[in-house]
Amino acid sequence: MTRERLYLYDTTLRDGQQTQGVSFSTPEKRKIAETLDALGVDYIEGGWPGANPTDSAFFEDAPQTRAMLTAFGMTKRAGRSAQNDEVLAAVLNAGTRAVCLVGKTYDFHVETALGITLDENVENIAKSVAHVVAEGREALFDAEHFFDGWKANRAYALETLRAAHDAGARWIVLCDTNGGTLPEEVGRITAEVIAEGIPGERLGIHTHNDTENAVAGSLAAVSAGARQVQGTLNGLGERCGNANLTTLIATLLLKEPYASRYSIGVSHASLKKLTQASRMLDEILNRVPMKQAPYVGASAFAHKAGLHASAILKDPTTYEHIDPGLVGNARVIPMSNQAGQSNLRRRLAEAGITVDKGDPALARILEEIKLREDRGYTYDSAQASFELLARRELGQLPQFFEVKRYKVTVERRKNKYDQMVSLSEAVVVVKVDGEKKLSVSESMDSQGNDRGPVNALAKALAKDLGSYQQAIDDMRLVDFKVRITQGGTEAVTRVIIDSEDGQGRRWSTVGVSANIVDASFEALLDAITWKLLRDGGSAGGAA
Amino acid sequence: MTRERLYLYDTTLRDGQQTQGVSFSTPEKRKIAETLDALGVDYIEGGWPGANPTDSAFFEDAPQTRAMLTAFGMTKRAGRSAQNDEVLAAVLNAGTRAVCLVGKTYDFHVETALGITLDENVENIAKSVAHVVAEGREALFDAEHFFDGWKANRAYALETLRAAHDAGARWIVLCDTNGGTLPEEVGRITAEVIAEGIPGERLGIHTHNDTENAVAGSLAAVSAGARQVQGTLNGLGERCGNANLTTLIATLLLKEPYASRYSIGVSHASLKKLTQASRMLDEILNRVPMKQAPYVGASAFAHKAGLHASAILKDPTTYEHIDPGLVGNARVIPMSNQAGQSNLRRRLAEAGITVDKGDPALARILEEIKLREDRGYTYDSAQASFELLARRELGQLPQFFEVKRYKVTVERRKNKYDQMVSLSEAVVVVKVDGEKKLSVSESMDSQGNDRGPVNALAKALAKDLGSYQQAIDDMRLVDFKVRITQGGTEAVTRVIIDSEDGQGRRWSTVGVSANIVDASFEALLDAITWKLLRDGGSAGGAA
Repeated sequence: MTRERLYLYDTTLRDGQQTQGVSFSTPEKRKIAETLDALGVDYIEGGWPGANPTDSAFFEDAPQTRAMLTAFGMTKRAGRSAQNDEVLAAVLNAGTRAVCLVGKTYDFHVETALGITLDENVENIAKSVAHVVAEGREALFDAEHFFDGWKANRAYALETLRAAHDAGARWIVLCDTNGGTLPEEVGRITAEVIAEGIPGERLGIHTHNDTENAVAGSLAAVSAGARQVQGTLNGLGERCGNANLTTLIATLLLKEPYASRYSIGVSHASLKKLTQASRMLDEILNRVPMKQAPYVGASAFAHKAGLHASAILKDPTTYEHIDPGLVGNARVIPMSNQAGQSNLRRRLAEAGITVDKGDPALARILEEIKLREDRGYTYDSAQASFELLARRELGQLPQFFEVKRYKVTVERRKNKYDQMVSLSEAVVVVKVDGEKKLSVSESMDSQGNDRGPVNALAKALAKDLGSYQQAIDDMRLVDFKVRITQGGTEAVTRVIIDSEDGQGRRWSTVGVSANIVDASFEALLDAITWKLLRDGGSAGGAA
Repeated sequence: MTRERLYLYDTTLRDGQQTQGVSFSTPEKRKIAETLDALGVDYIEGGWPGANPTDSAFFEDAPQTRAMLTAFGMTKRAGRSAQNDEVLAAVLNAGTRAVCLVGKTYDFHVETALGITLDENVENIAKSVAHVVAEGREALFDAEHFFDGWKANRAYALETLRAAHDAGARWIVLCDTNGGTLPEEVGRITAEVIAEGIPGERLGIHTHNDTENAVAGSLAAVSAGARQVQGTLNGLGERCGNANLTTLIATLLLKEPYASRYSIGVSHASLKKLTQASRMLDEILNRVPMKQAPYVGASAFAHKAGLHASAILKDPTTYEHIDPGLVGNARVIPMSNQAGQSNLRRRLAEAGITVDKGDPALARILEEIKLREDRGYTYDSAQASFELLARRELGQLPQFFEVKRYKVTVERRKNKYDQMVSLSEAVVVVKVDGEKKLSVSESMDSQGNDRGPVNALAKALAKDLGSYQQAIDDMRLVDFKVRITQGGTEAVTRVIIDSEDGQGRRWSTVGVSANIVDASFEALLDAITWKLLRDGGSAGGAA
C-alpha cells in the first residue's frame, strides 16, 4: 500500500504568538524556525509582515529553511484592487515562497464584522488569491470560521472555498477559528466538502483547543481526507491554543492507522528530537515544561502506581503505548528501586565517575537528590551541579577555596543631572591557599550601564582566587535563568546559570534560596568549582 | 425527544492521586469530595481502602455526599476465595454503597503480570463481583487494558466482560489504561462490545491523555452507546492524566449533539461553579492554574489578536463558542503590540477610562506600549501597569508620592553557631505630603528565614506612606515571576508582581531592568500606585 503524503504547517510564530503573555523577539523567532526546520515540518508561518516591527524584522532577515517559509496576511479589503491594497502589498513584499491569506466564509461575519456584501467578500477572496498566484507564489487560503459558516449557510461557505480553489489556491484550510466544533462534526463536514468537489489533496485543517479536542479534530479531518495539518509546538495559540503539533507529529508517525496510511516530512531520526524541541520552546518562553504533556512531558512515561511500576520492570510494554526513546523522552520509575540506581549509575558514568553496582553511596546520592528536589532544586538541566553533588557524597570533591562572607549593595538615587540611576557593588571574602582575600566589584558594564547585583558578585568572586585564578580567567557567564518554584511549603527562587570557557565547554549549575541573590551566588560557586575540577589541578589549603 | 441519562464518575481522589508530585491529605480529600458533590457528579471514587493510611483515614470518616461514594480495589487473587482475600475485605470494610474492582481483560497481562491462567482470572472476576453484590453493594468492574486486550484476543476480552456482567456488575468500565487508543478505535470497539450483547446502559469509559485524546475518546464512547464517563478534575492522573472531567462536564451540558441527546447530574446553575472548582483544586495542589485550560482557564476567553478583539466588540459570539459566564469564567481583552485601537479603547473602558474614538492619545498610548514592549515589558498579564501607563499619557495619574532613593544590602556571613546565614536590609526614602520619610526593613519572616532583598524593599516601601498608609495596609504580594528577556539588544530582567487586597481585588504589575532588584522595585511601585488610585483619594503634595 502506498502511503499518502500529509503536510505539516506550523504556525507557532503567528497563531502561537497570540498566546496570552507570549511575545517573541526576532532572534527567538529565528531560533524556533530553525528548530522546526530541523524537525522536518513542511511549512513555517513566520508572522504577518507589516503588522508589527518584530514580524517585519523577522522576514527582512529570514532564515534559510528547507521548509516553505510562509507570510500570513488577510484578503484585500473591498473597494480597492488587490494590487492597490497596501496591507496585502506588505505581505507580498516579504518575498516568501508561500503566502497564506485569511478570509471570511461565514455570512454572519461578512456582514457583522466586515460590514460588506456577501458578493464583495467572494470577490476579495478570488482577486487576492489570484494576485498571489500571479506574483508566482504558492497561495494558501485560511477559511476562517468555516465550520460555523457551513452550518449556518452551506451554499455561501462553499462558494467562498470555490472562489479560492478556482483562483488557484494550493491549499484551502478549513479553520475552526473559535474552537467550538467537536471532532465528529469536523470529520463529517470535511467529508461533505470533498463530496462537493474540493479535493482532499488541497484541503488543510486548522483547529483550536477550546473543547480540548484540537488534536482529535485534526485527526478526524485527516481520516476524512484533508492532507494538510496546521498546528503549533506545544499547542501554543490564541485562547486555549492551537492543535498541538508536538503531539500530532508523534501520533501520525507512531500510531495506527495513521502510521501505515500516511507519510510526513518528519523522519524517525528527527522524531527523537521532539522532546528537545518542545523543551527549547519552553526555555525561550521561560515556562516550566508541562509535566503531563503527551509524549514529551517529564511525567509522560512516569509510572507512579505500585502495580504499574512492578509490571513495567517485567515488561515495559505492559503500561507504555510507545517506547519513550522514540520521541527522545525517558521512562521514570520512582528512585527508591533498582531501576532508579541503574539510571543513576549511567548518569554518573556520563560524568566520568565509576561506581560499582550495589555501592551504598548510590542510595545516599539518590536520597540527597530527592531531598534537594523537594527543596526546589532540579538536576535535569544542571548537570554540573549534579556531578558536584555526587562527588561530594563520594568524597571525590576537593575544597579549592572557602567563601567566608559576601555583601552586595544595590542603590538607586539621583545623579548630578537629576536622573535616577542605579548601581550595585559587591564585596566577597574568600580563603584560598590559606590566605584571606577581599575583592570588590561594581556592576557597571563598559557602556556605563548597571548590570545588577549578580553581575557585581560574579565579578568580585572571580577577581582573585590566588593560584586558581588562571584556571577561571577564560570562563564567562552566558545565560541566567530565574524561576519562582516551590521549595517545601515556601516559594523559593531557583537560578540556573550557564557558563562557558575558552575551550568551548559549556556547563550548567543551580542554586535555590528564598533570596534571589543568594540563589545566584550558590549557582556561581558551583560554576567556578566545576571549572576548577576540570582545570584547577589539586585543592589548595583552603580550610 | 427524551434525553438519555449519562453518569459521571470522578476518580480525582484515586487515579488523580497517581499524578507525579501529587499526594492529598485526608482533609484535602474531603474538601475535593465536597466540591465534586456540589457540582453534581454521580460517583466519587475516594481511594483504595487499605492501600495507604490517607485513603483508609478518608473512608473511616467519609463525608456525607449525595453522590455515590465508591471504594476502589482489585479482584481477588487466585488460590483463595473472595471471602478470604484480605485485600478485598479491606475494600468492602470501608462500607461504601459502591465498590469498583479493577481486573485484567488482556491475556498477555494475565500471563505476564499476574502469572496465572486465563481461566483463573475469569473466575477471580466473577467471584469478586458476585461477592460485592452479595454484600448488598453496587459493583463496578474496571476492565483494565480493555482495548489492547480486545485487539489481541477478542474472545477472551469479551469473556472477562461477560463474567463481570453475569455476576451482576452494575457497570463494566472499558479502560484504556496506557492511553494509547485513538478516539475512532474507542468508538468502534465500544460499538462492537454492545453488538456482542453487553448493553450500553451498563458500560462506562475510562481514558488517559497519552495522545491528548482522552476527552475525544470519552465522547466517542458515549456516541457509541456507553453511559458512564470516568475522569478527574483538571485532568489529573497517572502519566499524562485521565480524561478531564472539567472539560467533559461543560461539553456534555453545552455542546451539540450531546446537550440535546443526554442529561447529566450537573445543572446549569452548578455549571457556573466549574471555574471555581477547577481553581480550588489548583489551590490545594499549590499549582498555578493552567491559563490555556478549556472553558475554565484565564486565557480561555482572552482575545489577543487585533482582528478578533475588534469583532468581539461588535458581537461576542463572533469569536466565542460559548458565553464564558455559563462556566463561571470571564472575557479578557489583553493589551499587546498586535492590538488595534478598538482593543485599546475597550481595555481602557474596562479600567473606567473613556476615550473618544479617534482621540490622538490612543495612538500615543499604543506607541508607548510598542516602545516599552521592545524594551522587554509586557502588558498582556500586567493590566494594572497598562492602566497606569495609559493614565500617565492621558494626564489622569496623580503623583501620590515620590521615591527619592533606596538602598538594599544583601549579606551572607557566619553566625555565632558557625552557620552561613543571609540577611537583607532595605532603606527607602520617599517624599509624601511634602515631607521626606526614611523607612528601613529587613527580610526576615516570622519564622526567622531570610526572604531576600525584594521582600525587604517591599516592606520598607509600604512602611510609611503618610496619609496613604491606610489605603495600602490591606495589600499583599501574592506572586512574583521573573524572566530574563531581550530588551533591545541586551538581556534584561522582567519581573511581574501579583498583588491582592482585603477587598478581594487582584492586580498585576511589571518592571524591567538589567538589575533584578530595580525591576522588582518598579513593579512594586506600580502595584502601590494602582492601589492608591483605587483607594487613596486625591494626590498629596508630593512634588
